Amino acid sequence: MKHLLDTRDLSLEDALNILDTADYMREVGTRTVKKLPALQGRTVVNLFFEDSTRTRLSFETAEKRLSADIINFAAKGSSVSKGESLKDTAQTLAAINADAVVVRHSASGAPQRLAEAGWIDVPILNAGDGTHAHPTQALLDAMTLRQFRESVTGIPTRGSTLEGMRVAIVGDILHSRVARSNMWLLHTLGAEVVFVAPPTLLPIGVEDWPCEVFYSFDEAMETDLDAVMLLRIQMERMNAAFFPSVEEYSRLWGLTPERFKTLDKSKQETAILHPGPMNRGLEISSIAADSQQSWVLRQVNNGVSVRMAALYLLMTGGSSADFQTH
Amino acid sequence: MKHLLDTRDLSLEDALNILDTADYMREVGTRTVKKLPALQGRTVVNLFFEDSTRTRLSFETAEKRLSADIINFAAKGSSVSKGESLKDTAQTLAAINADAVVVRHSASGAPQRLAEAGWIDVPILNAGDGTHAHPTQALLDAMTLRQFRESVTGIPTRGSTLEGMRVAIVGDILHSRVARSNMWLLHTLGAEVVFVAPPTLLPIGVEDWPCEVFYSFDEAMETDLDAVMLLRIQMERMNAAFFPSVEEYSRLWGLTPERFKTLDKSKQETAILHPGPMNRGLEISSIAADSQQSWVLRQVNNGVSVRMAALYLLMTGGSSADFQTH
Amino acid sequence: MKHLLDTRDLSLEDALNILDTADYMREVGTRTVKKLPALQGRTVVNLFFEDSTRTRLSFETAEKRLSADIINFAAKGSSVSKGESLKDTAQTLAAINADAVVVRHSASGAPQRLAEAGWIDVPILNAGDGTHAHPTQALLDAMTLRQFRESVTGIPTRGSTLEGMRVAIVGDILHSRVARSNMWLLHTLGAEVVFVAPPTLLPIGVEDWPCEVFYSFDEAMETDLDAVMLLRIQMERMNAAFFPSVEEYSRLWGLTPERFKTLDKSKQETAILHPGPMNRGLEISSIAADSQQSWVLRQVNNGVSVRMAALYLLMTGGSSADFQTH
Repeated sequence: MKHLLDTRDLSLEDALNILDTADYMREVGTRTVKKLPALQGRTVVNLFFEDSTRTRLSFETAEKRLSADIINFAAKGSSVSKGESLKDTAQTLAAINADAVVVRHSASGAPQRLAEAGWIDVPILNAGDGTHAHPTQALLDAMTLRQFRESVTGIPTRGSTLEGMRVAIVGDILHSRVARSNMWLLHTLGAEVVFVAPPTLLPIGVEDWPCEVFYSFDEAMETDLDAVMLLRIQMERMNAAFFPSVEEYSRLWGLTPERFKTLDKSKQETAILHPGPMNRGLEISSIAADSQQSWVLRQVNNGVSVRMAALYLLMTGGSSADFQTH
Repeated sequence: MKHLLDTRDLSLEDALNILDTADYMREVGTRTVKKLPALQGRTVVNLFFEDSTRTRLSFETAEKRLSADIINFAAKGSSVSKGESLKDTAQTLAAINADAVVVRHSASGAPQRLAEAGWIDVPILNAGDGTHAHPTQALLDAMTLRQFRESVTGIPTRGSTLEGMRVAIVGDILHSRVARSNMWLLHTLGAEVVFVAPPTLLPIGVEDWPCEVFYSFDEAMETDLDAVMLLRIQMERMNAAFFPSVEEYSRLWGLTPERFKTLDKSKQETAILHPGPMNRGLEISSIAADSQQSWVLRQVNNGVSVRMAALYLLMTGGSSADFQTH
Repeated sequence: MKHLLDTRDLSLEDALNILDTADYMREVGTRTVKKLPALQGRTVVNLFFEDSTRTRLSFETAEKRLSADIINFAAKGSSVSKGESLKDTAQTLAAINADAVVVRHSASGAPQRLAEAGWIDVPILNAGDGTHAHPTQALLDAMTLRQFRESVTGIPTRGSTLEGMRVAIVGDILHSRVARSNMWLLHTLGAEVVFVAPPTLLPIGVEDWPCEVFYSFDEAMETDLDAVMLLRIQMERMNAAFFPSVEEYSRLWGLTPERFKTLDKSKQETAILHPGPMNRGLEISSIAADSQQSWVLRQVNNGVSVRMAALYLLMTGGSSADFQTH
C-alpha cells in the first residue's frame, strides 16, 4: 500500500491493517499526552483545493498527534488552476521534500493523477475528490461499524470483518463520494450494502455495483438493517431538475421522527451514521441524531484515529503488528 | 475554577492565583527558550466565530509556549451558525478529544452555553463574547496595574490586590466587554472603578454596578486617578443615533494632547492603558500613546502571560505555588 | 549581519556564509528526520502584508525544520494600514517577545523601516518588498548557480563565488525585486549580469547599475550565457501602456521552443531559472521548463535551505563554520 486513493482497490488485508492500527491510535487519543513521536521531522502537506473545515481539522489533529511538521497549502483562488498547475504544485511539494500529501480536490481523479504522474514520489492520501472517493471517511465508518457490532454481539473489533452486516446508505448517491467509497470498502469487508435514493439521484451503472437498490426508504427499512447512514443534503443542488424539493426529500428519504420510531421498534439495534455536518430536520431529525443509536460523534472520533493509522502505515511502512500487546 | 468565562464570578483567590502564575509566565517569555513542556500532547482548540487577529495571536503564542498542540477553528461563514450548530461544533471538538477550547463569539453568553450545556467537558476560556465579557483582557489589565503600582510604590506584585487604586475607563461603555470585565475584576481586587462616558453610551442599570459614573472626562480627571483606560472607538457604530460624531467624541472623551498635558501635571504618576489596536488621534493622541506613562505595550506583553497562566491552571489543575521560588 | 533586508549591502563574506550554511541545511532536508533543534522555543513571526503562498510556505517549512514556534500574522485588510500602523504592529510583535520577523510588504522599504525605526529590536528578514528587494530569492538563485557550475565544472560549491559566470535576467525588470536583488548579489559574487527587456520595462538609472542591457533576447543569447532567468509576467500589468501584448511579450522575451532549441544548440550548458510560479507558454515554454537544463525545482528546494540558513545565522549568531565536517 503506497497511497490511499480509493477503497475500490484496497485489499481486505490492507483494510484490516488500517482498522486494527486505528484501534490502537484511538487509545492514544484517550491519553493525557496524546502524542506519538512516529512522524517527528517528517513534513505532511495538506493540499486543499476545496474547503473542508472538518476533514482538514481531523487530518491536522492526526498529524499533530504523530508529531509531524504540517504545511497547509490552501490552493484556492486564481494562482492554482488545473492541468499543468497541479503538476507545478506537486513538483513544488516534492522540491521542499514533503514526505506525504493529503489532497482534497473538486475534480474526481486528481489524487490518482498526483500519485501516478511521477511528479512527486511520496504517499498521497485522498481526502475527497469530486464525486469519486473519500477513503478515510469510509474507513472511519467501517471502524465505527466494527465498534457498533462489538457493542451488540461482543465480537472484538481487532482483525474482524463486517461479514453478515447489512448497511443502508440513504440520499444523494449520485453525487456522493462517501457512498461510493463506503460501498467498495463495506463490500470488501463482507457487508451487504443497500442504496436508498430516488431514481434521479442514483448513478448510471449502479446495477453493476455490489449493492442492492431501493427507491423507498420504508421498504428498505423492512429488510433488517444493522445500520443506516444518512448522506448530507447539498443545499446548493436543491434547485437542480433531478432533485426533489427539500420537503419532499426530507419526507421520503429523511430519517424523520416517525421513521426513527419505526426503526427503533423494528429492530432493537440499528446504528445511525452520518458523515457530518448534519442538516438537522432535513436528512436527519434531531431525535435520531441525538439518540442512543446515533454513532455520529464516534465517527468523528474515529476519523482522527483512521487518519493517524493511514499516515502511520503509509509513511513508516509499519503495520498493525507494531502495536500488538502481548 | 473549571472555566474562565467571566470575571464577575472569579473569586479573589482565583484571580490572584492567575496573576501570580502570570508573573512567572512573564519571566518564561524573557528566556532564550521561551517554552515549558506543561501542555505537551494536549490539544487546545481556538474556536473563533469572530475575527480577532490580536487576541488569537496572543492565545496562540501562549499555547505554543506551553507546548500544546493547536487546532484553529475559524467558524466563520455559512457552515456554522447558531443554536444547534454550536452544539454540533462543541460535540465535534469533544469527539476529537480536545483538551480545552478558547472561544470568541459575537453573541453574549456563547462561552457560558458551551461550558454549561454538557456538550463538551473540558475547560472553556472566553476570548470575548458579544458585549458581555473578556476576562483575559481584564486579567492582563490587572496584571499591568499591579506592575505599575510596583514601579511607583515598590509594593511587590506577587499576592497583592489593587486596594486603594482608582481606575477610570473611558468611552463606549455600553458596547464594551472590556469595560464590564475590568469593572468586576478590579472591584474584586479592591480598586475603585470610574466609568467616563456620554449618557447614551452607558448601559441601563449601571447605577447598580460597583462603579462611579462621570459624564465629563475632565471632571473625572480631577479625582486623583491612578490609571486611565481608553476604550477603542468602533468606527462602524459611529453613524448610530446614540453616538456623537468622531470629532465630538474625540474632543470630549479622547485623551487629547491637552488632556494628556493636564493629566501629566495634575498627578505625577497616572498609567495610561488601552486594549488596542489604538485609533491614534481619536480616543488617544499619539503623544499620550507613546509617552512614558503609556503601559499599552506592557499590556500586550502581559496578555501572553495571563493566557499562559489561565491555560496552565485550568488544564493541569496546578496553582501559582508550582512556581514558587525558594 | 543583523538583518537580511537587501542584497545590495550584503558583503561577500556574509553572502558566502549564508550560501555555505545553506549547503548544510540542504543536507538536513534529505534526512528522514528533517529537523534541527536550533531555534527551539524561539518565536518567528511571518508578517505578510501581501499574499504569497509559495514564499510563506518556504519560510514556514524552514522555520519548522529549525524547531521554531511560528506565528502567522496576515496583516491584510482594514485593521492594518500604513505609517503609524506598521509601528503599532511592530511594537506588538516586540511586546509578545518575537525573536525574528519575516516581513512581506507591497511597499518598497517597509522592512528597512521596521529594522531601523527602533520599534522592535530583533532580526528582520525581508521576504519581498514592493519592487525593491527579495534577498532570499536572490540567495537561492545564487545557491542554484553554484550547484549548476559544480555540475558542469566540478568546482565545489563551498566557499566559491560565481566569478566568470554570465547570467541573463529576462522580462519586466522595471517592476521586479527579484531582478534587482539578483543583480546586486550576483555582482558581489563576481558574476556578469545581463538584463534583457523592452525599453519600457527597464528602470530609470539602469545604466548606472552593474549590469549590461539588451533589448533583444536573441542578441543577448549570442553572448555566451551560463544561465537564463525568466521573470514571471504579472498578468495584471498587461493592460498598462508600457507593456507589450502577451503575444508580443512571449514572442520577443519568452523562452519559446525555438529559442530554447537555439539555446540548447548554441551552448551545451546553459541553466534555465525561474522564480515561479511559471506562466507556461508565456515567459517560458513547457519544453524549456521541463528540460534537463531547467533548475527551477532545484531553486524551490534551495529556497528552504537558504531561509533555514538566514534564520539560523541571524537568530543564533552562528556561522557556516558550525557545520564544518572534519
